[in-house]
Parts: sequence; structure tokens; C-alpha cells
Amino acid sequence: MNIEILAIGDELLIGQTINTNASWLGQELSKIGARVTRSLVVADDKNRILEAIDQCYPETNCVIITGGLGPTKDDITKHTLCEYFGTTLEIHQPTLAKIEAYFASRNRPMLESNIQQAALPIDCEILTNNYGTAAGMMFEKNGRYCVSLPGVPYEMKGIVMEELIPRLMQRFQLKAMYHYTALTQGIGESFLAEQICDWEDRIRERGFGLAYLPSPGLVKLRITSYEGKVDQAEIMEFFQELANRLPQAVFGYENDTLPDVIGSLLKTKGKTIGTVESLTSGLLAQQITSISGASDYFMGSLLTYSNDLKHRLCDVSVNAILTDGAVSEKVAIEMAENGAKKLGVDVCISTTGIAGPSGGSIDKPVGLVWIGLCISGKTIARKFQFGDNRERNIQMTVLSALNWLRFELNQR
Amino acid sequence: MNIEILAIGDELLIGQTINTNASWLGQELSKIGARVTRSLVVADDKNRILEAIDQCYPETNCVIITGGLGPTKDDITKHTLCEYFGTTLEIHQPTLAKIEAYFASRNRPMLESNIQQAALPIDCEILTNNYGTAAGMMFEKNGRYCVSLPGVPYEMKGIVMEELIPRLMQRFQLKAMYHYTALTQGIGESFLAEQICDWEDRIRERGFGLAYLPSPGLVKLRITSYEGKVDQAEIMEFFQELANRLPQAVFGYENDTLPDVIGSLLKTKGKTIGTVESLTSGLLAQQITSISGASDYFMGSLLTYSNDLKHRLCDVSVNAILTDGAVSEKVAIEMAENGAKKLGVDVCISTTGIAGPSGGSIDKPVGLVWIGLCISGKTIARKFQFGDNRERNIQMTVLSALNWLRFELNQR
Repeated sequence: MNIEILAIGDELLIGQTINTNASWLGQELSKIGARVTRSLVVADDKNRILEAIDQCYPETNCVIITGGLGPTKDDITKHTLCEYFGTTLEIHQPTLAKIEAYFASRNRPMLESNIQQAALPIDCEILTNNYGTAAGMMFEKNGRYCVSLPGVPYEMKGIVMEELIPRLMQRFQLKAMYHYTALTQGIGESFLAEQICDWEDRIRERGFGLAYLPSPGLVKLRITSYEGKVDQAEIMEFFQELANRLPQAVFGYENDTLPDVIGSLLKTKGKTIGTVESLTSGLLAQQITSISGASDYFMGSLLTYSNDLKHRLCDVSVNAILTDGAVSEKVAIEMAENGAKKLGVDVCISTTGIAGPSGGSIDKPVGLVWIGLCISGKTIARKFQFGDNRERNIQMTVLSALNWLRFELNQR
Repeated sequence: MNIEILAIGDELLIGQTINTNASWLGQELSKIGARVTRSLVVADDKNRILEAIDQCYPETNCVIITGGLGPTKDDITKHTLCEYFGTTLEIHQPTLAKIEAYFASRNRPMLESNIQQAALPIDCEILTNNYGTAAGMMFEKNGRYCVSLPGVPYEMKGIVMEELIPRLMQRFQLKAMYHYTALTQGIGESFLAEQICDWEDRIRERGFGLAYLPSPGLVKLRITSYEGKVDQAEIMEFFQELANRLPQAVFGYENDTLPDVIGSLLKTKGKTIGTVESLTSGLLAQQITSISGASDYFMGSLLTYSNDLKHRLCDVSVNAILTDGAVSEKVAIEMAENGAKKLGVDVCISTTGIAGPSGGSIDKPVGLVWIGLCISGKTIARKFQFGDNRERNIQMTVLSALNWLRFELNQR
């Protein structure tokens, strides 16, 4: 079953509002096995809307239109659909009763424009809106459907879940597609693809889809089965193989985040954590505490941005700073090791590096980062070379530190 | 000048990724006076892409395609465009040199798939990508343009700002509207509107547009002149009046950020700064250091998440914690005052609060925050009551602290 989504609204085209309705519909419709094949946005203009419906309608099983059902003058979807389907408006009594009750319960006067929201096309099914005053509409012609929904996200979502999805599942024989996604960190997209090309080939030979979804520092790998959940076990085997081959990269699945995964590991192992940060200046601690309940294992941090504070707060030896420099293996190790003692924690991560854009040299270019890790009484440090973008270097340091910590916690 | 945006990617259709590229493009193109008339999303499928280009191309001055330019097998935009425009690929030496330099600077090996990213269509202009390996392409046929850009947002944005917009402004006669925006913090949209309704009326009477652009914790006020730059001086007068009326709220203009503004003030006044953070757990320090050169004034921080570390690292009296609680005026003041000494800084901000969702009580509900500020030898604290969303509460605390600091620095 194919669906096309048509969103109406100037505010979407000029970027004042992001079209989150389309992505939410994509997610929910995928879950029931419908396939969104195209998504469009057009202006609040009758001809533009008619043209778009004309393009979508003959090519798909169902067009879902969002937006343009409000009480104001620029809301023209309803009249445009009447024209397209050759029908007229009539007051729909159950909807009028709902609108009256809505205003009565809020103690607000009802305007003529609100009454007009109950004027609905005669030749369509009404989809009840339990969250607002604009009802949904479902037209049918030659087995194809055209659905019109309000653009306000929570009203749209309510109608979809309560009224639309049950009807679609009933009228089409839906076989849900199945997606599952593994999350990796630390290996670039092309390098990753080369390392797992045999794995990828076998996935494609089995008729599954594989997508690489890169974002800064992360690559998601999504396997899709077009036959639905029947293939779930096989897909899990593929991901298990991936995790065995690249344990340093694969950190989770689906909606996992590194702070979640680390939080669970620390709780399970009953360990506390703290950080000593220089270039990341608190972002590492902030990420660890981004999830509720982090106070169970996160105690605190020393942000030693200046060399003076590295020494005064964290006992980093002046000698190490003078001979090896603040961005060095030795300083990273002293920061992590002394930090663990000062903060009284089991695990301590340190970061020191040159975020840029200034501060680099030939020996120590912008993007050079040392991360230290004190864990189970042992302290090690790793060197990273990132790029020349300050913000990215800081983000990459945080992701790399968290993922390395995850890997090391898993080993113990 | 009309533009249509065509985004390519299954991940957009199934809602795994939200199409923020389209909204960003809509914003930036509006600013130069171009009009986005339609936005489409189609799957990574050659026929679907060809069909979409066929639909858009004859109806508009320019089609901008995003996505599908990566190095992996599912990236097919380049080949599809070669087919559409009847051209072939050839290694583009300047692009190859850039890709080689990119990998060399990161000390990473270059793969065949990376080399292939330098294979570009013969009959198009190459738009240089200074942020990654996938170059942009600009095809022209009968005065109509078709532009292909990578889907990774910061690469796409870089190419648009540096390469595409200058070309569009040159080739189409664009009459840019003039926008100028003031930035406010700490007053909600509707309350703000009420306080400045006379100011707003006078702006509209002059034929200017005024838009309230709210985002969490901030409200931007944008005045638009439809006649271009000629009205600049008058618009500046309106904004000067606003800043005089609401000095605690207006913190900057256009692309200013609170960390920028604070950084300039601290540099001018020759003061150093540090933080002692509990609920914000490093986000405040991270914001202050988000701009290059922050090491001139930012020294470091104590993140005292646990009560034990509030006492051990920052000498907060056990008595204050036991009698008043960790979230109290007294503790906020001790954190800021003792922190200034421990860190050896002129200005110290402290944060303590209940981020939620758990940890609230009747006396101290979720969202209660105390911020302390030690400045010029004086320490004061302010109480805030935010909402029930953890992430928002932390963000609001950081914004409120920075804006309060800005206001106080300005007074001295």
C-alpha cells in the first residue's frame, strides 16, 4: 500500500515551521506496513493544492493532506477538496455538537467561524477530532482515498491514531515493513562500508535493504525487511555478527544513546564516575547527566581550562605541563588519575586538546586531542586527530570519550 | 524567482530523519528574495528521482536537490543526474586534490569510494565543498538551473552560503527584503507583546513587518522592510527604543549569542570568569567556551553534582545543606562566593536546582532553580521557577544565568 503526504502551508516553505508532521506520519505508517513514497509541501493556494492532488492522487492508494483546516480565511483546504471531488458543504450535526461542547467546557464564546468548521463535505467520511474543532475527512473514489487532516500536530496525531489507522488496516491488506537500526561510533561511513562489504552483500542477497545514515561522529546502519517481522530473527543475527566484528564501534540499537548505555553499565556495575575536562569544558559531564537519574553514578567534575587550574585543582605537575605541554599523554593521564582521587570516583575521564581555530602548531595541530581514562585503578590515554572545526572537534571528543568508556566498561 | 526543493532519502519518508534541510533552505532563500514554491521528498530510487526532476524542472527557475551524494552504494543522485542531463562522469582534479588533502590532514587512508567522489559530471559547474568530500553540482539548461547538494546539513549549508547564493544573486535580479532582528531573553512572547504593543503599532503604521520568533527561552523580534536597505536607520531607532525600555531582556542583534556578548564584555572589562554548577552540570561552562578565544577570560569550573562534592570541592557548609537544602539561596551564594576564591576568578556564577522529572517536593517543586552571581566582590542570588521538562529546565537555567550576567556586567 502506497501513500503520498501533502502538507499545505506557506510557513513550511519559508522554513518558519519544520514539517515534523510528515516525519511522524512516515514513522507511524511504516509501522503498519504502508509505504510513504513521496512527500510534498505546497503553498496555501487553491491552484497549487489542486495541481498537487492531481499529481498524487492517480499514482497512489491514499493521499494524506495536512493543514489548512483552521477557522481563518487562509484555510482553504476544505473548499478546494469540495471542488476537486464535486461535492458541497453541509453542517454536520455530530461535529457541531462537539464544537459547542468544546467551547462550553472552556467557557469561551463561539464565533460564526467556529460554527463554519462544522460545515463538512456531504460525500466523505468524517474522522472525529477529539482534540480540537477541525474534523478530518476521508474521500473515496475508485478504491483510492484522499484524507484531509488539521495541521496542528497533536490534533492530527489524535485523528490518525484513533480514526485513520484502524480504517487503513481494515481496507488494505497491510504487511508491516520491519526496520531495525544499529548505532556505531568512531569509524567513518566509507571506511565502515569497506570493512563490512561482505556483510552488506549478504544482506542484500537476502533481499533486505541496508542504509548508512551518517551524522557527525556517528553512523547508523538500518536493515529493512519488506516482508515484515518474519525476518526479525535473521536481522538480529546479522547485527550480532556486526557487533562481534566491530565491538569498539557498535554501541547500541534503535533509540539508544551513549549516555543511556553508559548509565546502565555504571548502574549494573555499581561504579561512580567523574570527569576532568579541558577542551570539552563541561560538555562531557553535561552529556553524562543528560538522562534522569544520573545522580546515582555521576558525582562531579573539574573543568580545568587554564594550566594554572590544571595544577591547582587537579595536581597536574608543572613539570609535565612545561616539558610535554598541556595537550599531551602525560597531562591527560595525570588529569584522569588525580581527578579520580579528588572527586572520589571509580571511573574518571579526562580531555585535553586543541579545539581551534587558533592555538595549533606544526607538532600539535588544531584537532589534536588526548583522552585519559582511569578505570579499575589503571589509567590509559588515547590520541585522536580531528579536523579544523571547533564545535565538531569538541563534539567528536565527547562522542569518542563516551564510546571508549562504554567499550572499556563492557570489558570489565 | 521561484525555487523547488527536492530532498532524496528513504530515511526522510519513513520519518527517521526530519527534513530540516528544506526548512533551512526556505529561510535562507527567502532572505535573498527567492521564493520556494514547492518542496518534495522522494525515495533513493532512480525512477522516482527522474520522475520528480521531470515534474519540477519545467515549472521553476531552479531545482535544488539535497541528498544521495555520499560514497556508498545507496547514493545514486550523481548517476541519475548524468542520465537526466545526458552527460558523463570524469575525475575533477581540484575536487580530487581537496579530498586527498582532507584525508591526509586527518591521517586516514583514502579508499576507492572516496576517489570516486571526485568523479563529477562534465557538463556542470562544480560547487566547492569546504566541509566534506561530496562536491555540489549546478546544471543549466535553457536558463533553468538544477543544483545537487549533499544531504549532511553542515556540508549543504556551507556550499549554499559560499557557492550557491552568490551565483543565484548574480544570475537572477533579486531585490532583497531588509530584515533586522533583536534578540530577547527572559520575557515570554505574549507578555512581551503586551509590554510593547504601542511600539508594535507604530512599526506597522510605518509599513514595516514585525515578527515574533519564539524559541525555548528566547524571543526574536524581526522587523522587515519591503523596500530594502533604505529604511535601515529608522529600523535601528525602533530597536534602540526597545533596548532602552527593556535593558534586562534585549541582549543583542542578528547573529549575536549570549556567549559572544558576554565574551566581549569580559574582555573589555578585563575580568576572568568561572562557574560552580550543579543542575546544569557543565552546560554553562560549555556555552561560555563555545566561542574561540574564551581561554582569555574563562579559567575553569567546579561541577558539584553531589552534596558531598559541594562541600569537599567548594567548602559549602554542611549546615547550609542540612538546614536550607542543596537548592537554596544560601547554597547558591556559598557556591558562587567560595567558587570565585577556589577558581581565582573575578566573576563566578553558580547554579543549583531540581531539573526533574524526579526529586521535587511541595516546597521545592521540579523546575525550582537558584542562580548565584559573585561579581565585584558582591554576591547575590536569584530564584527562578521553570517547568517540568528536564532538558528545558537546564537550558532555561543556562540562558537565564548568561543573560543576568550580561545585564550585571553592563551595569559596571
